[in-house]
Formats: sequence, structure tokens, C-alpha cells
Amino acid sequence: MSKEKQRKEIISKLVEKLSKTYQEKDVISFIDATDLPVRDKILDILDKMIEVLFPGYTGKRAVTKTNINFIVGDLLCDVTSGLTEQVEKGYLYQCSTKECEDCDCRSMAEDATGHLLGELPRIKELLKGDVTAAFDGDPAAKSYEEVVISYPCITAIATYRIAHELYLKQVPLIPRIMSECAHSQTGIDIHPGAKIGKRFFIDHGTGVVVGETTVIGDNVKIYQGATLGALSFPKDERGRVIKGRKRHPTIEDNVTIYAEATILGDVTIGKGSIVGGNVWIKKSIPPGFTVTTANADLICTDRESKGDLYEI
Amino acid sequence: MSKEKQRKEIISKLVEKLSKTYQEKDVISFIDATDLPVRDKILDILDKMIEVLFPGYTGKRAVTKTNINFIVGDLLCDVTSGLTEQVEKGYLYQCSTKECEDCDCRSMAEDATGHLLGELPRIKELLKGDVTAAFDGDPAAKSYEEVVISYPCITAIATYRIAHELYLKQVPLIPRIMSECAHSQTGIDIHPGAKIGKRFFIDHGTGVVVGETTVIGDNVKIYQGATLGALSFPKDERGRVIKGRKRHPTIEDNVTIYAEATILGDVTIGKGSIVGGNVWIKKSIPPGFTVTTANADLICTDRESKGDLYEI
Amino acid sequence: MSKEKQRKEIISKLVEKLSKTYQEKDVISFIDATDLPVRDKILDILDKMIEVLFPGYTGKRAVTKTNINFIVGDLLCDVTSGLTEQVEKGYLYQCSTKECEDCDCRSMAEDATGHLLGELPRIKELLKGDVTAAFDGDPAAKSYEEVVISYPCITAIATYRIAHELYLKQVPLIPRIMSECAHSQTGIDIHPGAKIGKRFFIDHGTGVVVGETTVIGDNVKIYQGATLGALSFPKDERGRVIKGRKRHPTIEDNVTIYAEATILGDVTIGKGSIVGGNVWIKKSIPPGFTVTTANADLICTDRESKGDLYEI
Amino acid sequence: MSKEKQRKEIISKLVEKLSKTYQEKDVISFIDATDLPVRDKILDILDKMIEVLFPGYTGKRAVTKTNINFIVGDLLCDVTSGLTEQVEKGYLYQCSTKECEDCDCRSMAEDATGHLLGELPRIKELLKGDVTAAFDGDPAAKSYEEVVISYPCITAIATYRIAHELYLKQVPLIPRIMSECAHSQTGIDIHPGAKIGKRFFIDHGTGVVVGETTVIGDNVKIYQGATLGALSFPKDERGRVIKGRKRHPTIEDNVTIYAEATILGDVTIGKGSIVGGNVWIKKSIPPGFTVTTANADLICTDRESKGDLYEI
Amino acid sequence: MSKEKQRKEIISKLVEKLSKTYQEKDVISFIDATDLPVRDKILDILDKMIEVLFPGYTGKRAVTKTNINFIVGDLLCDVTSGLTEQVEKGYLYQCSTKECEDCDCRSMAEDATGHLLGELPRIKELLKGDVTAAFDGDPAAKSYEEVVISYPCITAIATYRIAHELYLKQVPLIPRIMSECAHSQTGIDIHPGAKIGKRFFIDHGTGVVVGETTVIGDNVKIYQGATLGALSFPKDERGRVIKGRKRHPTIEDNVTIYAEATILGDVTIGKGSIVGGNVWIKKSIPPGFTVTTANADLICTDRESKGDLYEI
Amino acid sequence: MSKEKQRKEIISKLVEKLSKTYQEKDVISFIDATDLPVRDKILDILDKMIEVLFPGYTGKRAVTKTNINFIVGDLLCDVTSGLTEQVEKGYLYQCSTKECEDCDCRSMAEDATGHLLGELPRIKELLKGDVTAAFDGDPAAKSYEEVVISYPCITAIATYRIAHELYLKQVPLIPRIMSECAHSQTGIDIHPGAKIGKRFFIDHGTGVVVGETTVIGDNVKIYQGATLGALSFPKDERGRVIKGRKRHPTIEDNVTIYAEATILGDVTIGKGSIVGGNVWIKKSIPPGFTVTTANADLICTDRESKGDLYEI
Repeated sequence: MSKEKQRKEIISKLVEKLSKTYQEKDVISFIDATDLPVRDKILDILDKMIEVLFPGYTGKRAVTKTNINFIVGDLLCDVTSGLTEQVEKGYLYQCSTKECEDCDCRSMAEDATGHLLGELPRIKELLKGDVTAAFDGDPAAKSYEEVVISYPCITAIATYRIAHELYLKQVPLIPRIMSECAHSQTGIDIHPGAKIGKRFFIDHGTGVVVGETTVIGDNVKIYQGATLGALSFPKDERGRVIKGRKRHPTIEDNVTIYAEATILGDVTIGKGSIVGGNVWIKKSIPPGFTVTTANADLICTDRESKGDLYEI
Repeated sequence: MSKEKQRKEIISKLVEKLSKTYQEKDVISFIDATDLPVRDKILDILDKMIEVLFPGYTGKRAVTKTNINFIVGDLLCDVTSGLTEQVEKGYLYQCSTKECEDCDCRSMAEDATGHLLGELPRIKELLKGDVTAAFDGDPAAKSYEEVVISYPCITAIATYRIAHELYLKQVPLIPRIMSECAHSQTGIDIHPGAKIGKRFFIDHGTGVVVGETTVIGDNVKIYQGATLGALSFPKDERGRVIKGRKRHPTIEDNVTIYAEATILGDVTIGKGSIVGGNVWIKKSIPPGFTVTTANADLICTDRESKGDLYEI
Repeated sequence: MSKEKQRKEIISKLVEKLSKTYQEKDVISFIDATDLPVRDKILDILDKMIEVLFPGYTGKRAVTKTNINFIVGDLLCDVTSGLTEQVEKGYLYQCSTKECEDCDCRSMAEDATGHLLGELPRIKELLKGDVTAAFDGDPAAKSYEEVVISYPCITAIATYRIAHELYLKQVPLIPRIMSECAHSQTGIDIHPGAKIGKRFFIDHGTGVVVGETTVIGDNVKIYQGATLGALSFPKDERGRVIKGRKRHPTIEDNVTIYAEATILGDVTIGKGSIVGGNVWIKKSIPPGFTVTTANADLICTDRESKGDLYEI
Repeated sequence: MSKEKQRKEIISKLVEKLSKTYQEKDVISFIDATDLPVRDKILDILDKMIEVLFPGYTGKRAVTKTNINFIVGDLLCDVTSGLTEQVEKGYLYQCSTKECEDCDCRSMAEDATGHLLGELPRIKELLKGDVTAAFDGDPAAKSYEEVVISYPCITAIATYRIAHELYLKQVPLIPRIMSECAHSQTGIDIHPGAKIGKRFFIDHGTGVVVGETTVIGDNVKIYQGATLGALSFPKDERGRVIKGRKRHPTIEDNVTIYAEATILGDVTIGKGSIVGGNVWIKKSIPPGFTVTTANADLICTDRESKGDLYEI
Repeated sequence: MSKEKQRKEIISKLVEKLSKTYQEKDVISFIDATDLPVRDKILDILDKMIEVLFPGYTGKRAVTKTNINFIVGDLLCDVTSGLTEQVEKGYLYQCSTKECEDCDCRSMAEDATGHLLGELPRIKELLKGDVTAAFDGDPAAKSYEEVVISYPCITAIATYRIAHELYLKQVPLIPRIMSECAHSQTGIDIHPGAKIGKRFFIDHGTGVVVGETTVIGDNVKIYQGATLGALSFPKDERGRVIKGRKRHPTIEDNVTIYAEATILGDVTIGKGSIVGGNVWIKKSIPPGFTVTTANADLICTDRESKGDLYEI
Repeated sequence: MSKEKQRKEIISKLVEKLSKTYQEKDVISFIDATDLPVRDKILDILDKMIEVLFPGYTGKRAVTKTNINFIVGDLLCDVTSGLTEQVEKGYLYQCSTKECEDCDCRSMAEDATGHLLGELPRIKELLKGDVTAAFDGDPAAKSYEEVVISYPCITAIATYRIAHELYLKQVPLIPRIMSECAHSQTGIDIHPGAKIGKRFFIDHGTGVVVGETTVIGDNVKIYQGATLGALSFPKDERGRVIKGRKRHPTIEDNVTIYAEATILGDVTIGKGSIVGGNVWIKKSIPPGFTVTTANADLICTDRESKGDLYEI
């Protein structure tokens, strides 16, 4: 059957061609990288942690006073072993790319996992505040339960609060995998590096961006499409941006940021200020101030200066 | 093995700590709440209703004149029993939190389910109009089939039209679970409480928000990122917004709203008007008017007034 | 049991009612349409192609020098037969709706599939560039691997690059099903018809829209919420937009477009230009220019002209 | 398409024809029998009980001192609620066919489930004895673990010991569904009504039959193909066998029954006796006796008597 | 990494070695045999037919007067298309190995499937008789429902009655795949070629063998381990047995065959006769006779003749 | 809710009770036994090896000249890594129970896996002979393909031939898990320790037992229910049988053993001999002899001697 033969040849050549590209030194390669964390397992662990924080909220299992401790205990044991394994893979992978010596990846993984688990009661307390903030702040909210079960911001914030603890332990890859999962589900993109206070509420949420070095106080409320981003930053000789500096805003307590507003760079929005919808800000705002598209220009007077660009 | 012992102790303590938080009176708790609706089952039922509305569109099963009635009949029976069960759980849950008496949750659930099923032929007719509107309105649309199979707005609108019927019956939790599912998939956030007319088209859709008390006429067209939101509203002494009032726009027939436009508060956009992209409106617009960023200020003259804020 | 009887009657009548709507001539119907491509299979094939491009990146399987060629070869064989089958269904369906004659759908499907597979090494090379662009352009990026594993733009661009090759072969339905899948996951909506150059980077991405006839050069960088859309276009006597013309922008090499910027119509953004956040442009911009909200009006002087509307 | 029409007619007629048979009064019918226990759920519950008895034996989960109590507690809660539900369905179904009054099926189900769970520690102790008996009795056994993990008799006996407790509570359908599941897996058919002592071992097992009213002492050992069956019994006027009498053997302590041996009727095999392979016995055997095919005739002298038949 | 290289070489060589064996002319090969029926799909179809025969018996779905016709109709449509596809594959495969011409495999498949479906009401009637026979014949049977849900003989006989209709249409491979599936589950091995009358009961069943050319009348009852086999038959010059002749027993109405009895060759067991347990028969038995191990020799007098062998 | 409290207490006490039993020193325990091989993974690996031996036989995937080497290569890589992992777990478990030192379990596992894989081409050759033997020996066999796809003996023998190679490498647990899986599916119980020659055929198979130290030559044919077992053996002072001696028959070339025949102890059935159905043999039989139930006594004259018992 000459057609089959032809097909065989085509595929063989294609494999060969692709095969060569996998060998190239400078290519991103996952070959022989046996310690890459497994995305599906990470998301499963994340689900289990959220189940620990809100047991029974999916309705899948009846959670009762009788079984609650068994279920939670069982989940925590699973999370402990599963997360330690994945975090270890993360550290090992980093080591393999960085020629480091003497890293005890296992211990580091146990330490990071232990840290996150120890924070769970505090995270639960924080999420309780976030749920209350959503209920109090949204006239469409019918009950606390509705908020927990269906509000995308709860998924996004719970994921952030978990991923942030791993970020603090410098766990590679995993915090970002978690936050991008929430981003995909909710359209809310909170970098695990951000620092966020109590009673945080994001309404609707699609398109919200909270950058890596953002700092957010308590009782902050953000609407869809709002961006807390970075201004343009110095680049190295190869044209690559220089990494690792505070480049996002600080939002103080009780600030409200309306839809599609954009705040860029390492500026501070003072306590109790209000940033109107669609407003574009690159300067610090004093406490108690209200910025609208009408007065934004007065405040941000350097607006006309050419080249004053922002990156996010 | 002292390490194992140590691990055991840590987990035990953590369970105990978390366990306490589950007991607190004021916490959102799903313990012993055996009647919580089950998210996965609701989404499965929603899928089945969409299959009834567009039989065969997933290509998974060959639907023929021979089997069509059996398939549809079987799906409807499944939907009837499955939805009644979930809606009953919804009502029962509400009752358990509200100390109500004499609620016949079963009858109410049968009534709500029967109502929705009875509306399916009308919903099908409406969706036929929505598909035509999308095909006619988008130069990139190649065929009706492409629209049904791949356009996110069809998912979002079909889900809305179904969830809305349950909202009318004051079914708790379930309509919102449905609409947030579509929100997650499409980035289009239509509250099940909105009232939407015939031949509704949303292009691209990511970031679109349609608030709870919005009213939309026939032949309306909306682009990505457009918001039909609420202005700031009175709060009670605890600082919580007061719920249950008309607080979103009314969009009359044949209006087009371009990308990123924002319309806030209980205002009316008159018949045939056009709202340009990026425009920010908090006042009613007469019929036949075109608003662009250039003339928006003239129309909305109170723009400068400090404190004139909008919430969505 | 008269209640059961009643239920039976209700369902029977409902089936009958719906049944009639399925028979209507002018309705979208998938009945007896045995050749409709299957969404789930298409997405499975897409996943496999991405696995070929980045073998091992999910961490699910350890990919080693020993098994890499077997895995890739096996995947390519699967893709070849699976895609040929789906593409054939696509062509057959189109034929069934268009009364065409003498279409050899099988050969056409083999040709389109062969074309796409032949392009895979080139696509791989392009994606390598896209990953580098993302790493170089985002200060938050910690490693190439993090980019591949977690950045939504990689999913969106890889899907686009694959779907585009099928679009070039005029395969119906399938390219759009693929791109809408990426849209749903990432909030990035790139039409498979767009032409996109090397080293393309989209940061955050939620709400980005790239229209069907857009042309994008090399080293272009786009931020969340940016739209490359179309202006309003002529309609036929039935009020339907006329299809099939170049109606989206051309973006030349080295252009950066910041968040929420909107560029509409068949205009050209010249080499190396920068489009600031929130800017609204409907005119061509010369090379090396920087447009901000402050100077946008000066450039786009016809802004006031009523009726100058844009569609996307 | 007349072929499609023809097909439709054929199927419709067939449905109609079958439909009629479902209505017939005297037919076994499961229509409107909403309380039938669910086979798959019963087997899942059975699996969970075996997991409680031998935690970790499947190797699927690492069971440690840390998680053991959580796992077991969680499983027991699941078993309690799941089994209560299924047993209730069983009682309800029986009631629906028997016109009984005043059955509190829920309480009966809770009682039966509570009884079985209370017996689990004793069953665990018994199974420990059974495993030891298998290891001691089979020269091919390499370790206790091998016996638990791979010996079919352990599956069969564990299932029997569980099903027997439900049989004692006169739970309909479920004990038999459990025992037939083990029968299907192992070829060993132990009726849940049998009474079986400690340290019971069945080697190989295929074809072993232990009838409903069999009584087996301690330390009994049975080989493949052995039958403990019933003799022919009186029939009623309709030719149906009369139910509910002791009609199977009593096997005293320390008896060994070799392969393919058949013991029929309510006879007693005395303490420590040995029944050789292929032997056919319908008479009681005194303690300490060895029966082979050679001496079987001497013992069972009535062998020649025509008509002396056995049923099993 | 030289170890990885070594591993690669070993696997490569092994693939090469095995690869050669797949090319050999005389080897059983399934390569390029695209029309082989798919085992899993056949068993799924078989399950669906049994669901049509006993709707609701698994308890998985509540079957009611409302949904019964939809469910059955839907199942029958699925079975029709699925079975036609598999049967066509079966015929096509046979054609590919037999160099036949002018086979219209599609029509043949439609004919065979149509035949089987047309027989379903009759098969349902027969199975009703088989269930009654089991209930009447087994003192341990508690209800008709228990028989249907848990008795292995019902699975085995239902499968046989279905597979037999396909055997009559000379469908290759599929009937045997079905009967071996029942054999694996129940230990009962009924060849699909056998002819079996009404009210057939097999108790316990493990080890029962019913050969291809066996003929069984009405009201026959068989116990575990009983064999209806063939005597030794002439072989061709290559030592292969000659195929295609009546070589198994005929069992007339009302015969009972007890456990482990063996009846060999094309002999007849006369109406109402009883064959005792463990009896070995190679001669015809007149009607009304009772054969036990005691009188078996008198009847089968040629027992001593050397070479008088039996095959099964 | 005092009922819930009561339930909680009951479960807690039960967990405590069971918990204690898990701590006991002398109990079979899988707690903290992290290296137990995983049954499901072993069966998956076994399936993959059988797929390598008969690629495409399940019909699930079309195997072609184009993809065959990729598929087989991919499967072999999977089998190599998966089996090495499981075998290592097996050795580690054994070490943990035996206080052995200096076991390099990883190397041993690699060695055993490498050995088995190296034998696959030879096993494939042997199975080819087994299939031919089945086709030649069974008049009901319609084609080689039918034999491979549906005959239980092929499953049983293929499993045996694979498990035997691991048995030779003294791999703990795994060979037995494999053989018991085949036993459960087919009713054929071949101990992985047996030595079996070429062209082996088992017809029907239910109830066949082949003991650990059995030796079988070429061209041997066995029917259902036949046992190749052991005689009674010396016990130690605790009454446990002494392990590790040749205690099963040797069957020379070209022997046929009919249904339900039983051959016990370390005896030899000479070349070309025939053992009739139901015959019971404990003595060696010279070559070329035919044993029937009629002449069995003459040959095995010590039959009467009391106490001459057999174990299997």
C-alpha cells in the first residue's frame, strides 16, 4: 500500500525534524526534566485546600459534625504529602537549571508546605472577612452562602492567599500555576507576590490586574477591569527589562477603585481615597481624595509630557 | 519513627484549630447543611437544557429524525427530576437560614421547574433570534452553525435566558451558580435578574457586565468590556449598601453600545441611540442620539461635580 | 398514579412542541447532520499538538531522550488521523449546506492536515521566539519554564498559530472552535484569520481582541484589554454587514500597545510606535511616534465628527 | 430521506411492542420502582468496608500513623450514610411488593447498618485468622501480605462475613448482590446465609459452592470445586421447591474437604474428618474419619438406590 | 548521561526486533486492520440491550412511566447504529481475510442488526420464563427481583440469547466476544451456537460448559460444573480437528443435570430424564430415566474400551 | 441535634477500636508501608505488555505500519519505567519485612524489568504457537483472530508467560497479583512458578489449576476443571506446611488431559499419554498410555490405602 508508506515517511521525517529542535541547547526543554511539578496535581491540591477552608461548599458531600474532622484531617494529610512532593519538584527543577549546590530540596519543601498549612487558620479568618466584604458591598448579593458558592472573587482571593504563602517561601513555578488557574477561571489576575490586607472585595472582576509588587491595605474594593500596574522600567543592554524592584502601587486602607481605572507605578493612593472609573493615574494621591476623569488631569499634571509611558 | 509522630501531632493540632472555626456562630458554614444545591449537578442540568435547545450541536452524538424525540424526551425527564431536586435543596437551604414556616419546598420546586420547562420553546425561539443577530452583525461570522458552536455570547445568553426564569421564581443560589459558570467560560457577566429582549448580540464579550436591574430592549448590540452598572447607593448605619432597588440602566430597542463603554445608574438610553467606545455615561440619552468621547462631556454636564460617583 | 400520568402528558406535549421547531426550514439545525465536527475531539487534537510543541511541559509524563521520539511520533499519528477526520467532517458539512458538487472532501482534509503538520517545526520555532519575548518583556517572569507552563499568552498564541494554518486552508468551523477555546481559557480573543509575526507578547491578556484581518509585525507587545478592531462597515439592504474585506489595523514591527488601548479600522501603526494605555485611535500613526491620551486628539483630529463610529 | 423514515418507523414500533410488555402485571418490572438499591453504590460501599478492614492494602494511598484515623473515620462515615440509604431502599422495595404496613424502613436501615458497623472489629479479628490459615495452609504462600493482596479466598470470605451480618438483619437484595459480586470475581459462591467459624481457608476456590443453610466450624479447609449443597426437596403442587428449611451440611471443626468433593443435604461431617477429592457424600460422617473415593461406597451404602438424587 | 543512552539503545533494539515479528506473513496481525470490531463498544452495546430488556434493574436511573419510552427508544437507536457499525467491521474483517468479492458488508450488517432488534420482544418473553424458572427452582431465591439483579445465570442466558441471534446471521467475532464476556463474569460458558429452549435455569453455574452444537429443550435445569461437550473427532492430515459437525448432546424437555455431570458427543438425553451429579455419559439415555454414578456403568457399557475418548 | 451527637460518638468509638487493632504487632498491616506495589498500576502495565504482544487486538486504536513502531516504543518505555517502579516497591517491601542489608532494590528492579522486556520477543513467539494450538485444537474456533480476541486461555497463558519471568527473578507479590488477575477473569489458575512448554492449549478453562512446581512439556492440551495439584506434605511442629519443594506433576510432551481430571503430587505423565475426564491420578503414567476412570484403579493400586491424601 504505497499511500501508507508515503504517510509513514512523512511522519518519520517530521519526527526527525522536531526531534532536532528538542536537542538544541538554547531551547526551552522539558526533556529529561523528571522533576517538573505536575499542573493537574497542583490544582487538585489547591482544590483540597479550598475544601478545607469552606468544607461542604460544593454540595458534593454532606459535611456533618460527625465527619467534619475526619474529612478535614484526611484532606490535610493529602495536601501535606502531595504539596511537599510538588514543591520539592519545583525546587529540584530550579536547582537543575541553576547549578546550585547543597540544596536540601526535600527539607525546603517540607518547610514551605508546613508554613502554608500553619497559615491555613489565619487564611480562613481572612477569607471570612473577604466574604463579609463582598456581601456588604454588593447590593445584588443575596446571602453569605451565595457569595462563597458563586462569586469569582472568592475563588481568586482564596487562591491568591494560598499562593502568596508559597511565594514568600520562594517556591518556583507553583504559586504562578495556581494564580493563573484562578485567572483563567475568573478573569482576575492577582500576582502571588502582591500583599493584600483584610476584607478585600473585587466585584465582577473580569480584567482586574494586580501586579507583583502591589501593596493593598484593609477594606479595599476594586471593580472589573481595574489595573494596578507598573510604569516603564530600565532595560539592560540586551533590551530586557530589569527584574526585582518595587514597581506597582501601594493602595492604603478603605480605598475604592472603580471599573477600568488604571494606576501605574510605585505610587500611593492615600487612605480612604476614591479612584473613579476609567481614570488613569501615575502619581500618588493624598488621603481622602476623590479622582474622576474630570479632575485627573489636574492631579496628574505631567500627563502631557511625551514619553511618560507606563507598562503593566 | 519520631518524625511521623511529630507530623501526626502537627496535623492533629491543625485539625483542632480549624475545627473550632467551623463551630463559630457567625461564620459561613456548610456543616450539617445537607440541602445545599450541588454545583456539578446544576451545571450538568444546564448542559442538558442547552442540548435540548440545540440538539446535536456538540457533534458528540448523531441526532437524527429517528432518535431526536427519544433524546429530547429523555433529556427533559432527566432535567425535570434533577432540577426539581436541586431547586428543592435551594429552597430548603433558604428556609433553614430564615426560620420560615409552612414552606412547601417540594411543591415550590416542582412549580419553578415546571415553569422553566414550559418556557423552553419560547427560549428556543429567542435564541434563534440571538443567533441570527450574531450572524448578521458580525462580518467574521461564516455560518449560523459556527455561531452556535463557537460564539461565547450564545453560551452566555442561553444560560442567562434559562437562569432568568428561575430568578423570576426566586429560586435561591441556582440562577447565580449558572450565570457565574457562563461568566467563567466567556468573561460575560449577565446577572440573571436582568430583563433582555429579542435578538441580543454581544461581540467578543470579555469583560461585559450587565447588572441585576438592567432592562434591555430588542435588537441591542454590545461589544466587549461594556458595562451596564449601578451608581453609588445609600448605605445603612453599618456601612452596608441597601439592597433591592432599580439601580441599573434601561437600554431601549436598536441601541448599539461599543467596546469599553460604561453606562451607570437608572438612566435610559433612547431607542436607536449609539454609545461610542470608551464613553462614560451617567445621564439618560434621548432616542436617536450618538454619544462619542468627544461629545460625552456636553451631554453629561455634571461630570465635574466632585463626589458624583458610580458603583457597578 | 395520576400525578405520574400528568407529568407524562406535560413532557410529551413539550417534546412535541420542541419537535416541531426542529423541523422548521429556517432554523439552525443539527439534525441528520452526521458530519458535524466534534468539539471535544478537536480540543483533544489541539492539546496533542501543543504537547508535540512543548513535550513534557504538563509534567504528567516524564519525557526522556529514550521515549521522546516514540511519544512525538505516536502523537503525530494520532493528530494526523484525528484531524483529517474532523476536517473532513467540516468540509462535508459545508458542502451539505452549500449544494456544491465534486468536492473531494477527503482529499481536501488530507491536504489541510498535511499542511498544518508540515508547518509544526516552523510554529515551534515561532513559539520559541514568543516565549523569549514574554520572558524578556515581563519583569515578573522568573524563568522560560514558568512562561511556558503558566502564561496565558502562550496558550493563546500557540492555539492561534495552529488555527491560522487551518484558516488558510479555509477549513470551516474548526479554527474558530480552537480559538474560542483559547479565548475561554485566557480571555484573549485572537481571530484565526489574523496575520502575526515573530516574538509576539501579550501581557495579562484578559480582554485583548485581535480581529480577523489584522496584520501584526515582529516584536509587537500588547497589554490587557487592548483591541485591534474594525470601524463600522457598509450593510446590505437587509441591514446585514457585508463580509470579507480588510477592516482591521496593520501593526508594524516593534510596536507596543498599552492596556485598554483601542485601534480601529484598516489603519497602520508605524514601525516602533508606542500606543499609550486607554488611547482610542482611528487614524494611521507614522513610525516612531508615541500616542498618549493627551496627544491622541491632536493626531486624530476628526474625533468630533458625529457618526464616525467604529465597530469591532 | 425515505430510509431514515423507515428506520424511524421500525424503532417506533419496537418501542411500542416492548412498551406493552413493561405494563404487564405478572412481569418483573423495575418501572416506577424508585427505591431499588443501586448495585454500583453497594459495591462501592463494600470496597470501602474492605478498605477499613485492610487499610492501605491496594497500595493506592500511603496509609500512615498520621492519616490512618482520618481515613478510617472518613470511610466509616461514608459507609454509614451510604449503606443506610441503600438498605432503606431495599426495605422499601420489599414493602412495596408485600403490602406491609407500619414498616419504619428508615429505622430498620439505621439499625441494620449500625449492627454491621459494630461488628467490623470482630470481622477484622476473624479475617486476621482467615489470612493466617491461608498462609499456614498453602505452601505456595510467600507472605501474609501476598495472601491479603492476591488471594481470591480473602475477597470471598471478607465479602461473606460482611454480607452475612446484613442477612441476619433480613436486609433484602443487598447481601446477595454483594456475594454474587465476590462470586463473579473469584468463582467462589458462598451464600450470605451460611454460618462460618474461625480460620476458614479456601484454596484456589473456583467452583466452590457453600449453600444457604450450611454450618461450618473452626479451622475448616476447602479446595476448589467442592460443593456443600442440598438434596432434592419437597415441591408444592405447582412444582416449586418449598423454601426456608435447613437443607445443607454441617461441617465440624478441623475438617478438610479436598477438590471437587460434593457433600449434599443436612448431614454432619464430624470433627477432624477428611473428605477426599471427588468424593460424593450424602450421609453423615463420624469424627476423625477419612473418606476417599475408595471407601466412600462402604460408608454411603445406599448409593445404589435408584432415585436417590441430590440437588444443590 | 550514558545510562539514558544505553536505555535508549535497548528499547530501540527491542522495538526493531518486535517490529520484525509484526511483519511476518504467517503471524496473527492486527496491523492495518482498521475494521476490527471494538471489544469495549460491543460490551457497551450488550449492556444497553440488557437495559432494554430489564429497564431500571441496575437502580442507577429511576425508570418511570413518563421516561420509559424515551429511555428505551434512545437506547434502541444507540444500539442500532452502534451494532451496525461493529457488525460491519466484523464482516469487513472477514472479507479482508477471505478474498471474497461483492460482499455488501453494510447491508449485511444492517440486516443482522435489524434481525436481532426484531427478536428483542421475543427474547424478553423468553427471559421472563428463565427468571421464573430460577425463582421456582431455587429454594434460596427470595424474589423475582433478586433473581434478575443478582443471579449470574440471568446474565449468562440473556447474553446467550442475544449473541445467538447474531450467530445465526453468521456475524464473525462479535457473538463470541459477547459470550466470553459473560463467561468471564459468571464462569458459565455457553457457546452462541447452541440452541436453547424456554425456562432454562443454571444454578450457581461456575464451570458449566454448553458446546456449539448442543440442543436444549424446555424446562431444563443444570447445576454448576456440568459439561455438555463433544467426543473426540476425526483430524485432518495436519492433525487439526475437522470443523463444522454436530458433535454435542441433545437435551430434551424437562431434563435435570446435576453438578459436575459430563455428557459427551452427539447423544440424546430423553424427555424428563435425570442425570446425577458427577456422572459421565457418552451414550443416549431414554426418556424418564435416572442415571447415577452407580448405574452409569451399566448404561455406558463400552466404558472400558481403550481409545474411547471424549473431547469437549 | 442529639442524634448527630450520638452518631459522632459511635463512629469515634469504632475508629478508636479499629485503630487499636492496626497497632498490634502480629497483625498484617499496611500502615507506613509506603512501598507496597499498587495493584491497579501493575494491571495497567500488564495490559500494556499484552498490547505490545498483540498490537491492535482490542480494536480501540487503528494500528498501522505508520504508527506501529511509535506505539510499541511508547508502550515499552512506559512499561520499563512503570514496572521498574513497581518491582522496586516489591523488593523494598520484602526488605522492610526481612531485615535484610545491602539490598540494592533499584538495581534489582532494573535487572528484573530488563530481563522481562528482553524476553518479550520470545514470549511473542511462544504465544503465536499457543494461538495456533487453540485454533487447531478447537473445532469451534473460526479464525486465529477470534482466538486472540476472545479465548480466555490466551489471556491466562499470556499473563502466565509474563508473570513467570518475574517469578524467576524472585520478584515478590507482583507475579501473583498478575496471575490472580487472570484467574479472576478466566477461572484459570496458573501459578507463575510453573514451567510450561510450547503450543499450550486450555479449552474453556474454568476451574483449571496448575500448581507452583508443575512442569509441562510441548503440545499439551488441558480441558476445564483439570487440576495439576500437590499431595499432602509434611508439616512443622506448629502444623504449618513446609514450603519450597517440588510437589506438583510433570506433564511430558503431547499429553492431553480431559475435563475434571485430577493429577496429584510429583508424578510424571509420560509422553503422548491421555488422561481421561474425571480421572484421579496419584502415580506416574508411562508414555503412550491412556487412563480412563475404568482403568485408573488398576494403575493406581494404592488407592485404598487410608491416609493417602492429596493436597492441591
